[in-house]
Amino acid sequence: MKEVKKRSECPISFSLDFLGDKWTLLILRDIIFAGKSTYGEFLSSQEKMATNILADRLGMLESNGFLNKQVGEDKKSKFVYTMTEKGIELIPIIMELTIWGSKFNPPGNASLLKELKKNKAGTIKAYQDKLREKIAKE
Amino acid sequence: MKEVKKRSECPISFSLDFLGDKWTLLILRDIIFAGKSTYGEFLSSQEKMATNILADRLGMLESNGFLNKQVGEDKKSKFVYTMTEKGIELIPIIMELTIWGSKFNPPGNASLLKELKKNKAGTIKAYQDKLREKIAKE
Repeated sequence: MKEVKKRSECPISFSLDFLGDKWTLLILRDIIFAGKSTYGEFLSSQEKMATNILADRLGMLESNGFLNKQVGEDKKSKFVYTMTEKGIELIPIIMELTIWGSKFNPPGNASLLKELKKNKAGTIKAYQDKLREKIAKE
Repeated sequence: MKEVKKRSECPISFSLDFLGDKWTLLILRDIIFAGKSTYGEFLSSQEKMATNILADRLGMLESNGFLNKQVGEDKKSKFVYTMTEKGIELIPIIMELTIWGSKFNPPGNASLLKELKKNKAGTIKAYQDKLREKIAKE
């Protein structure tokens, strides 16, 4: 796994040091919208992430505190990944990527877009709170 | 310049097809916050973008309609780049990257963060309108 290097003091550059990549945010998308939590589940996404890329990005997300990795309870999957508060705080960015992508490549998820248009802050908070409940249970 | 390939119908994936990279959004940052418009100005940013990467990303942004490229009036710079409406619509994403980056790597731009906290939609619109004025003048 490549170490994340900080290029400057700029907050945008800092965010992109971690997130500036075609794959990392798709893993978080799968946790937020599809409730995925295991390597196998992430691998099955329609973008067909290569195994080495998935392993690298999961490692980066875990070692930098975006995800927690725990041994799975059901023994079927070796590890399960859940989002930390640092990861949950990325949801506003992910929602804006959704809005922009839906605008320039329609259609998107119509019901989500409607909710975001009506009450963006409230919709983001609802998604965040749902994931925060999982942290509270750990 | 590598052609941008669409990986799926997901709007987040579509956005990342263009923006999922450590450098592209920094060029837009420089236009939005620093009023930069030329190759030389982008090259001088503190993250020290390599010339081949800068040329590639400017080409991608222009050919995909995020930036307009025009011959400079002052003859000093061969070309000047301005944002299109499609690029201006990315400002909410860039603002959220700013907020997240400032939270997890303080300090950020304190006055901007204060404005965003007080009135996020209005602050985003003010930055967008400023760039839209430039389009109107063309």
